[in-house]
Amino acid sequence: MAHFLEEFLTPESIAVYGANNKGAGIGSLQLMGLIISGFKGNIYPIHLKLDSVMGFKAYQTISEVPEIPDLVLIVLPPNIVPQIFRECGEKGVKRIILISGGFRELCGERANTLTEEIQEIADKYGIRFIGPNCLGIYNSWLYPDDEGSALNTAIWEQQQRGYFSIASQSGTLASHIFFDPENLDLGISRSLSLGNEANIDIVDCLEYYKKDEKTKVIGLYIEELKRAKKFLRLTKEITPKKPIITIYVGGSNAAKRAVKSHTGSLAGNAKIYEAAFKETGIIKTELVEEFLDLARICEKGIFPKGKRLGIITNSGGPGVMIAYQAEQKGLTVPKFSEELRNDLKQYVIKTASVENPVDTTFDINLNNFYINIPKTLMKSGEVDAIIMYGVFGFQDVLNELLQYERIAKYQNFPEQPNVPLEKIFISPILKTSKRYSIPIFYINPQNYNNPWSKKIRSTGALLFKLWDSPVRCLAKLSEYASYRKRMQSKE
Amino acid sequence: MAHFLEEFLTPESIAVYGANNKGAGIGSLQLMGLIISGFKGNIYPIHLKLDSVMGFKAYQTISEVPEIPDLVLIVLPPNIVPQIFRECGEKGVKRIILISGGFRELCGERANTLTEEIQEIADKYGIRFIGPNCLGIYNSWLYPDDEGSALNTAIWEQQQRGYFSIASQSGTLASHIFFDPENLDLGISRSLSLGNEANIDIVDCLEYYKKDEKTKVIGLYIEELKRAKKFLRLTKEITPKKPIITIYVGGSNAAKRAVKSHTGSLAGNAKIYEAAFKETGIIKTELVEEFLDLARICEKGIFPKGKRLGIITNSGGPGVMIAYQAEQKGLTVPKFSEELRNDLKQYVIKTASVENPVDTTFDINLNNFYINIPKTLMKSGEVDAIIMYGVFGFQDVLNELLQYERIAKYQNFPEQPNVPLEKIFISPILKTSKRYSIPIFYINPQNYNNPWSKKIRSTGALLFKLWDSPVRCLAKLSEYASYRKRMQSKE
Repeated sequence: MAHFLEEFLTPESIAVYGANNKGAGIGSLQLMGLIISGFKGNIYPIHLKLDSVMGFKAYQTISEVPEIPDLVLIVLPPNIVPQIFRECGEKGVKRIILISGGFRELCGERANTLTEEIQEIADKYGIRFIGPNCLGIYNSWLYPDDEGSALNTAIWEQQQRGYFSIASQSGTLASHIFFDPENLDLGISRSLSLGNEANIDIVDCLEYYKKDEKTKVIGLYIEELKRAKKFLRLTKEITPKKPIITIYVGGSNAAKRAVKSHTGSLAGNAKIYEAAFKETGIIKTELVEEFLDLARICEKGIFPKGKRLGIITNSGGPGVMIAYQAEQKGLTVPKFSEELRNDLKQYVIKTASVENPVDTTFDINLNNFYINIPKTLMKSGEVDAIIMYGVFGFQDVLNELLQYERIAKYQNFPEQPNVPLEKIFISPILKTSKRYSIPIFYINPQNYNNPWSKKIRSTGALLFKLWDSPVRCLAKLSEYASYRKRMQSKE
Repeated sequence: MAHFLEEFLTPESIAVYGANNKGAGIGSLQLMGLIISGFKGNIYPIHLKLDSVMGFKAYQTISEVPEIPDLVLIVLPPNIVPQIFRECGEKGVKRIILISGGFRELCGERANTLTEEIQEIADKYGIRFIGPNCLGIYNSWLYPDDEGSALNTAIWEQQQRGYFSIASQSGTLASHIFFDPENLDLGISRSLSLGNEANIDIVDCLEYYKKDEKTKVIGLYIEELKRAKKFLRLTKEITPKKPIITIYVGGSNAAKRAVKSHTGSLAGNAKIYEAAFKETGIIKTELVEEFLDLARICEKGIFPKGKRLGIITNSGGPGVMIAYQAEQKGLTVPKFSEELRNDLKQYVIKTASVENPVDTTFDINLNNFYINIPKTLMKSGEVDAIIMYGVFGFQDVLNELLQYERIAKYQNFPEQPNVPLEKIFISPILKTSKRYSIPIFYINPQNYNNPWSKKIRSTGALLFKLWDSPVRCLAKLSEYASYRKRMQSKE
């Protein structure tokens, strides 16, 4: 039997409260999101005054809708929500997403008992609901054969389909941070923005993701755990198979205050949380950039067998900085054996260094840099992961230079062949990387959207613009991988 | 009298060894860089066999060049460099940039005494030289009235002109990290890639930058200090007036090994360096992204008077994360006074929070969000800096939505006026920010090059994509600002 959250994510009909034809307000944005995402089921706007909303026939009340909608989306002022819940219950609705804020997160003179009211109504009618105070849900797998269409009630851009699933007590972490579709090579599977968790909480999501075939990596944003014991037990069961990347912030005074006015939660004692997290194999981060990078790294599914980093660079400074950061974060940058150094010598020029970092300096023998050197390292058994700095788009640089008349006029460049260099220089190494389970990260400071960067990314390789985050991520990944190995060997 | 480095940066004639017409090799790339940068002086390629290089008449030896070049650029195999130095000396050349590697950084069986040889020759002829093992120099101010032209012997893209000057023992840190011209709002003034520092070192650069009118912020990358005492004395003199942002890495085993094979330096004891740095007011970082962000922040010249951060957000999660990180890094996120909270209430909707963070939630009253709330905070005297999360391009989102036929057909959006919103919503606050010396950072996760992001950036505002780095930078900036205040009050 499918988990009840699976039913939230695969509706065939949706009723929407709070959308209008003026394009203003969250309700309208949510409905637009739904339309644009390519939802193919029935849409029923509920509106007291309008006959149609965005081209869909509108209904004054849910009782008039010609079927029982699989899902109801509510964006209305909080004080009328209990009444709407009742009407939905009478109709036979079983699943609601309550976007509106104005519940438990209000305190002092503004405090209200609306949360308890709607919880009671939901229980009475057997309704499960997400929210309140959330941004909605996303499912890239709604139509398995149609990657261009999805379920998207959140306000965000369409994402690449993949296996990273999110459960978040922040709508932003569930959606907005993916607003920049150009800079992410991360395939999203499901996303659940949980808001105040008045009915469905993060433990429900973990239970679902644990068994979900379309979820291989899990991302969580946590301000409060309502069922901490169950959370810890579940995560322990999951992490040997699926990495869980978690942002938990709640330890500081201002953060506690902010949490209170955000989701109404009392942030727990950070130290207790952290100690507990350690036993679960969760990959913890406080940085949003790292959260995103860890997600795309883990989604590739290549985990290092240890902490030994091999560095290949064509520039000394980044080599030094990468080595330094790696050691700071708990990786090792081992000195290579004499045998390995001798192997490497055939692939570098005289002024280069075959220590670790391997510094090829000004050589531009692409075959050595992209193929022979990393392959030699992977086969040596002396490293568990590789970072390559300086994968510049030389070909594009030359082509760009030729646009300058003065140079094009007098220069006699060898013709730049129009061959898919990425298939020659990147794809074979990715195969080796997989075979040996040695992750390889590429760094090109030119930009993610530089032509050569785009070609590299098209192979499925992990590309970064600078080296801070990939080094940190690798350190966390190697810790997780060793935890996972320990746990798997116990089974 | 001008500092001798000023003469390096303002040549009227340059001779180039090592360029050819095949476009291959660093020498050719350097000359191409020089041409593309718009250098207007005389260029004299020196080549044994070619009559012309890239359209310039070539000379077999420097003795045949019809004038004494102000600057000579050498990219040749190291063993012939001493002879070239001698020929330059005989010609009367006083300034050389020696790009080639293969000197002190080679060790073991490959070690050589070429460094001592060229130092001796240089001394004999009164030659000053940059390098060896460097990438060249950059000066955006060569032609004060022509911003489109510059002196650029390094291999990089043309940068926005400004007041950030670099001296670096890594060519990459002096040039390549600026390869991505779209993502930086940082005006570069000078850049000096120092390599092995066989003749000119970082202390020379500091002496020059100290008095240089076109340098308001200094960036350093250091693996070794050859004149540590003088360095510390100089930086102490400079930092009360000009911020110095410094990457120093050398404390770990692998980093030391990497430093040795990079510039041949023996990395110093990191702890001693760091203790010394603390007394100088230097802003230290180990992260390249932070280096770049600190540079563009400092170049704006608005320094906070204290550590109190005000956070404005339309999304709870980022507000919580910013507050947490801020407190972790030593900032405070003060609770606002009742008076201030009452002032703020008129600018938010009922479900919003006027605590710190101010969370405007789903309200899209742009005038309140962009103008009234930050202005109220700035005038309150209760914060020293402001971070605004969620400066989404709503207008662009709506316009984008209208591209979908289904929505455009039925929607009746109010017409989106074509007014320069950035001048209405951003520019006035930047003036207030300057008047009160309260820096304000904007965060839009959509991308630096999203239309609204571009408009914000066009006003000179500081925009970020995510919040990790700006929070860290602000913490460092406030520390620096308080050091600077202490030092200035002593004078």
